[in-house]
Amino acid sequence: MRMIVIGGDAAGMSAASQARRRLGRDELEILAFERGDFTSYSACGIPYWVGSLVDGPDELIARDPATFRKDGIDVRTGHEVTGIDLGARTVTVRNSDRTFTEGFDLLMYAAGAQPVRPPWADNPASGIFGMQTLGDGAALNAWLSSFEGGGRGGGGEGRDAVVIGGGYIGVEMAEALVRRGLRVTLVERSGQPMSTVDPDMGALVADAVRGLGIELRTGVTVQALETSDDRVRAVVTDDGTIPADVVVLGLGVRPNTALADAAGIPLGVTGGLATDLRQRVTGPDGVVDGVWAAGDCTEVTHLVSGKTMHVPLGTHANKQGRVAGINIGGGYATFPGVIGTAVTKICDLEVARTGLSSREAEAAGFRFVTATIESTNRAGYFPGAVPMTVKVLAEKDTGLLLGAQIVGRAEAAKRIDAFAVAVWNRMTVTEMTALDLGYAPPFAPVWDPVLIAARKVADKI
Amino acid sequence: MRMIVIGGDAAGMSAASQARRRLGRDELEILAFERGDFTSYSACGIPYWVGSLVDGPDELIARDPATFRKDGIDVRTGHEVTGIDLGARTVTVRNSDRTFTEGFDLLMYAAGAQPVRPPWADNPASGIFGMQTLGDGAALNAWLSSFEGGGRGGGGEGRDAVVIGGGYIGVEMAEALVRRGLRVTLVERSGQPMSTVDPDMGALVADAVRGLGIELRTGVTVQALETSDDRVRAVVTDDGTIPADVVVLGLGVRPNTALADAAGIPLGVTGGLATDLRQRVTGPDGVVDGVWAAGDCTEVTHLVSGKTMHVPLGTHANKQGRVAGINIGGGYATFPGVIGTAVTKICDLEVARTGLSSREAEAAGFRFVTATIESTNRAGYFPGAVPMTVKVLAEKDTGLLLGAQIVGRAEAAKRIDAFAVAVWNRMTVTEMTALDLGYAPPFAPVWDPVLIAARKVADKI
Repeated sequence: MRMIVIGGDAAGMSAASQARRRLGRDELEILAFERGDFTSYSACGIPYWVGSLVDGPDELIARDPATFRKDGIDVRTGHEVTGIDLGARTVTVRNSDRTFTEGFDLLMYAAGAQPVRPPWADNPASGIFGMQTLGDGAALNAWLSSFEGGGRGGGGEGRDAVVIGGGYIGVEMAEALVRRGLRVTLVERSGQPMSTVDPDMGALVADAVRGLGIELRTGVTVQALETSDDRVRAVVTDDGTIPADVVVLGLGVRPNTALADAAGIPLGVTGGLATDLRQRVTGPDGVVDGVWAAGDCTEVTHLVSGKTMHVPLGTHANKQGRVAGINIGGGYATFPGVIGTAVTKICDLEVARTGLSSREAEAAGFRFVTATIESTNRAGYFPGAVPMTVKVLAEKDTGLLLGAQIVGRAEAAKRIDAFAVAVWNRMTVTEMTALDLGYAPPFAPVWDPVLIAARKVADKI
Repeated sequence: MRMIVIGGDAAGMSAASQARRRLGRDELEILAFERGDFTSYSACGIPYWVGSLVDGPDELIARDPATFRKDGIDVRTGHEVTGIDLGARTVTVRNSDRTFTEGFDLLMYAAGAQPVRPPWADNPASGIFGMQTLGDGAALNAWLSSFEGGGRGGGGEGRDAVVIGGGYIGVEMAEALVRRGLRVTLVERSGQPMSTVDPDMGALVADAVRGLGIELRTGVTVQALETSDDRVRAVVTDDGTIPADVVVLGLGVRPNTALADAAGIPLGVTGGLATDLRQRVTGPDGVVDGVWAAGDCTEVTHLVSGKTMHVPLGTHANKQGRVAGINIGGGYATFPGVIGTAVTKICDLEVARTGLSSREAEAAGFRFVTATIESTNRAGYFPGAVPMTVKVLAEKDTGLLLGAQIVGRAEAAKRIDAFAVAVWNRMTVTEMTALDLGYAPPFAPVWDPVLIAARKVADKI
């Protein structure tokens, strides 16, 4: 048996590793193609690399090709799969030298996501960067270093950067460029950065972004890029032109499934590959024989709204890849879905969410109430106690916990995990008020902020 | 209607406050008697006060008598209830001046716990301190200041302290005395400090205790105190005599229910008051009419083992008091029980546990497997990443999560909350491997230590 893996990042290589742990080389040959230069890396670490907080790129690579090869996984970087023939069970592969075909019995599709690029972003001028792959990070770092002078993290100091898109990556990249000494403008089409949290929580994020010295422009739509001498010079918006020596695009991603589509593999409602709980690709006619998928190219079920969504996060990619690999290897594992947990940090502001935001709860048809509380990370009298804001959503009448959001300066973000496990288990906020969470003055007030928030929203049920 | 509250700390005053929120002064008169000088304080904060990390005692008081009185709760400190007449519906009260009786319709029994004192501790010499009330903390602070000289936190520097009992309070007090500059010996009868965690995790705690310069003596039983000139001079053990200018007793507590017992109120199997889910005191004949109880004087159900236990923690006292008060006020609330969550800090070592330890799981009759993993608090490449050890217990065959323990140097303790909510919801460790917990490099590796531990133990099911 031979498995071909398309894509050498978290999902594909987790699947390969798990399958290899269960099946010997004589039972399963594993051949993985990665069009980029790196395998199994932390894309989430790129902003910290650009921001000179961590070294790169080696530090961001969990496992390199040589290590995989030692374990009997033949992974080839710089190899792009350009076609799949499901009938003939072959893929067409291109590298810098040639194009060739390889046969497979099993196909693991883990091609990831590709950046959303509006027409105006399709510009050959230099100084324009996506921020999705380790290669993107390397290219931006090289560009910054190419400027004369050079500040804390190399060159670029005093230049103008415009980051387009105020989601997690956009905000993290804006901070990274500030760290490198650039003047940074963050442009976001909606009314707030991080529109995955409610507007009142987003306002706290906006304050933190501005506190870093970032010029935050919300409600602004980009219309074009101005270039000259093959370099980007400015970003043209519906609210004026912003000078730019470098432009970073953080406009989100969509599933990279064109190859699957061309091969006649059915796509799901989001354009991602639909899978069953074991990560087998499914279509209108059931399971697509011998084709598995995991990671950013797939769609997932949101366990609170029941909706099918595209949620491109490394944490899901790793879990899905592991599940696929266990099943391919003859074991049994399932990936039931996601509940929308996400955390990030802007300077020292921690932002976290799980479940549904107000907008999502409305869209799903829930009738719900919310409560927001202010508390502290530690007992109020304990050194290092700083404020924390917690917002909770619960279904009206039933009290079912629908979601939670947390913003705070310390020991805030990971408190979302208590809510996440509660959402996962369909707890009511009333039941949550009795939860036996950890208490000691260095770690929490005697009523943890999680419990205070649950109490407040429970009072409204 | 008139309610009398016995005990003015967390449980009693939470009950009073909740009842007051629901019933006006014309509907319910509330009279609370506290034998000490303080109300509603954080006993958990005392070690940090003694250690000069926080100021006291005012900072440790959540609400003082004047504030309660303003809210229509007549609380009298320095008043000890010495008798209850259930038939006549009266209590006998003694203050420094006189003894008198007061009538009640409802009795809220919240007399807390009293320190375990072996016969040898019953010694009138000075320099011997319990560590249960704010008064105990004040007395120890005054004693330390009475020494000549005085170091960082006042006097006592260079003197010998012996802390007897290596539980949470004992370890925290030992550290506090080190901070004050004393030479500290910690004596524990069992083989490890913090016997609420497994021996392998306890060994990490022992290392941290020794790392603070504390002389840790485990497996050592105290036999007597040596005194002269009305001062303690040494602690005599089965393994030699230890010089002591000051002795702190951290030998645990038992429910303070002698008063209830004398009044014919039935006690539970642990010696604590048994209550129903709404905190009404119950006995063999059902609910004891008009008598409520909450806090350290009560016993609780452990929701994993099903056992009835005495778990004297402020977090439970607050919750139980709130539940009692809501019910007294005509509302509805229940306190279902505990799952044994506890966290603490020794220097920079965070220690946490929830559910059952191996010893407890065995005693409860579970057949179980354990797994221990090493991971980090943040992505391994992220600045500030430090090791964390996580141990998980799961029922053999079913995979039911029975308990977890965490030891780490940063961002470790509160990770126990994810396990706590999972234990509460009777999750299996296999289901836990799919949990959507927060991930970003500053906060976790892509597989959170919680998930890595769940995976490892799930592999053994």
